[in-house]
Amino acid sequence: MPKHEKGSTILQRADELAQHTEVPGMLTRTYLTPAHSDAAELLAAWMREAGMQVRRDAVGNVIGRYEGLTPDAPALLTGSHFDTVRNAGKYDGNLGILLPISCIAAWHQQARRFPFAIEVIGFAEEEGVRFKATLLGSRAIAGHFDHALLDKTDEQGITMCEAMDAAGFDAGKIRDAAFAPEKILAFLEVHIEQGPILLDEGLSVGIVTAISGASRFLVKATGLAGHAGTVPMHLRRDAATAAAEIALTIERRCSGIPGLVGTVGQFEVPNGAANTVPGSAVFTIDIRAESDDVRQAAVADVLRDMQEIADRRHIVLDIQATHEAKSVPCAARLQQKLEAAFGKNDLPVRYLPSGAGHDAMAIAAVTEIAMLFVRCGNGGISHHPDETMTAEDAEVAAQVFSDFVESFDA
Amino acid sequence: MPKHEKGSTILQRADELAQHTEVPGMLTRTYLTPAHSDAAELLAAWMREAGMQVRRDAVGNVIGRYEGLTPDAPALLTGSHFDTVRNAGKYDGNLGILLPISCIAAWHQQARRFPFAIEVIGFAEEEGVRFKATLLGSRAIAGHFDHALLDKTDEQGITMCEAMDAAGFDAGKIRDAAFAPEKILAFLEVHIEQGPILLDEGLSVGIVTAISGASRFLVKATGLAGHAGTVPMHLRRDAATAAAEIALTIERRCSGIPGLVGTVGQFEVPNGAANTVPGSAVFTIDIRAESDDVRQAAVADVLRDMQEIADRRHIVLDIQATHEAKSVPCAARLQQKLEAAFGKNDLPVRYLPSGAGHDAMAIAAVTEIAMLFVRCGNGGISHHPDETMTAEDAEVAAQVFSDFVESFDA
Repeated sequence: MPKHEKGSTILQRADELAQHTEVPGMLTRTYLTPAHSDAAELLAAWMREAGMQVRRDAVGNVIGRYEGLTPDAPALLTGSHFDTVRNAGKYDGNLGILLPISCIAAWHQQARRFPFAIEVIGFAEEEGVRFKATLLGSRAIAGHFDHALLDKTDEQGITMCEAMDAAGFDAGKIRDAAFAPEKILAFLEVHIEQGPILLDEGLSVGIVTAISGASRFLVKATGLAGHAGTVPMHLRRDAATAAAEIALTIERRCSGIPGLVGTVGQFEVPNGAANTVPGSAVFTIDIRAESDDVRQAAVADVLRDMQEIADRRHIVLDIQATHEAKSVPCAARLQQKLEAAFGKNDLPVRYLPSGAGHDAMAIAAVTEIAMLFVRCGNGGISHHPDETMTAEDAEVAAQVFSDFVESFDA
Repeated sequence: MPKHEKGSTILQRADELAQHTEVPGMLTRTYLTPAHSDAAELLAAWMREAGMQVRRDAVGNVIGRYEGLTPDAPALLTGSHFDTVRNAGKYDGNLGILLPISCIAAWHQQARRFPFAIEVIGFAEEEGVRFKATLLGSRAIAGHFDHALLDKTDEQGITMCEAMDAAGFDAGKIRDAAFAPEKILAFLEVHIEQGPILLDEGLSVGIVTAISGASRFLVKATGLAGHAGTVPMHLRRDAATAAAEIALTIERRCSGIPGLVGTVGQFEVPNGAANTVPGSAVFTIDIRAESDDVRQAAVADVLRDMQEIADRRHIVLDIQATHEAKSVPCAARLQQKLEAAFGKNDLPVRYLPSGAGHDAMAIAAVTEIAMLFVRCGNGGISHHPDETMTAEDAEVAAQVFSDFVESFDA
């Protein structure tokens, strides 16, 4: 068997799949576009070639079923999404579909079957680019699709419902996409890490402990604008230095605690001028943690410290909570099974939380979930054409995935 | 004599002058517009009424001469500008023309003359709004008008030269606007403080020690963008927290030293997103001080500390020096004469630097300068319609001005 056979196939197919894009020379594949439809067909073809029966559901998910030893056996689910952000990387999402296909192709070749079926799902929508609503594919499968979203429009004014119709899907049948809990055993999602932890530690793969919960805020700080030359330092109410002090407080509070991160991603002095003491500053706060307790404690400390800073500087804060999501834990028993597969391959075991959201988050509503992270090259860059991974890492991940499945017991 | 007679007249005339605006309901009077021309005529009329002979020079300055005891005596100069910023306050500039007119009107009524002439100059342009070039009126009088500026265009594409021509001025004669140094004795500018110091200390007027020098920089900090959820704190190269730390360092370094101020007026994360670790941040630095040594020491410390912060955080700084101006001192002997006038009126003497630039800066090239600051109400707000001052303070300033002139000896 050639070196990294599965890994090479996976990377080669990721290249091929990336040809299906709305924008030549740049990977952009949003929900229900022709490029999206073409990608779905290619995935379906590879699934069939690997011995699976393929179906599409009413939201456009591509589902390949590799039957078990007995017909109609409950299924171990795996998969990820094949829609992309604008100017995307090739592996985000797609890896989690292509990798199981390669593993199943090998079993198919060996005519090997398990006491359970395996279903590989190419989720039609996760990123939320076209309709500003995320996880559409996985939510439909979990039976939690929000039908109010069907009226949302894209930039051209096309509703989601119209887009489904044009692509040949029947929005009236979305409820049928939901999986019956008794027919599924668990869900394992393979995904590129989209961060630098494995890269930094020289590891090919890692086991996700939980998808972090998140708290987000939009803050406006209001002080008093003044002339940069004429207002002495002690009489200033500078909104930007107040915001700067808050940003550093967040950074400090969220550092040194594993699984906790805090970010001020937007920071602006509206209409700022070089010779004007800033009268206002607008910034965002994003705090995430594997543990909800850890996150909530950090948020509470940050909110208290912000107020102290604002009071001391005679700044008024308008704090708007814009997002709040609990942590979604990965099942302990599935983590242990992944750990066993790591052990079988002599891989150092690294547990890490997922700071980004994934389809597994939605699927957790109907079954136990697990995630296998694969090292992201190039500093951990993702959502960007510079996203990279190696065939060697894909091979290692495929081996872990295979061992996980082969030793899986319902 | 009615209470605050001069002060009331000055404020009333400031209201009247503010009617000459390009934009109804908001004071905006830029160089060589019809509103500017109307304001000049009104000033000229008040000057004539106060016993002055009035002339316009080639850049549009309005110059009223109150003759001394002998014809052709050298002149004590005073004045300020009558152009304004957009949506301006009524007193910035205008006060320094209206106040001497009121004082001269009183002497004229008493038929009182001095061994020197007094010339009140309404400088036609100081703010730089229309042609993005400042101090045009005072520079012409100082003989330092830059003729290359005549080709500059306003937002409509009209060159300064064309605008002069349309308003009836001959750009070819700008050199004639320069005052012969032997014909002038000194220059005293009365100006609203445009800051909160006198207000904070409960004082009507203050004596300016110097117009502060300034150093300005535009800085781009470059780190590495990343996902706010997936990049752990210790692996980040966050450009915004680096910039925040620099902003606080500047604030700290410039605090507690009289006459020194430091400002980060612009601060932006370009294309920042709540869920993205900032890969870049752009900000400005403005450092000013009465003393050039104090300013240069602060700049050197800030530049060194910035580099240390950037190195520690693996951030690259692109630092562009955008402006550098030395401090312009007020003449010690004129400050003493102002102090004597304060004493005569039992006023507490407060020396303070001017953090903003003024026409006196340009006139310093040909004669000794002094500045009298008048309290700015409303938190010290200026360049804004909320700029206020009281008739009582205008009266006090007029009294100091009068005593200064009456005891002036060449």
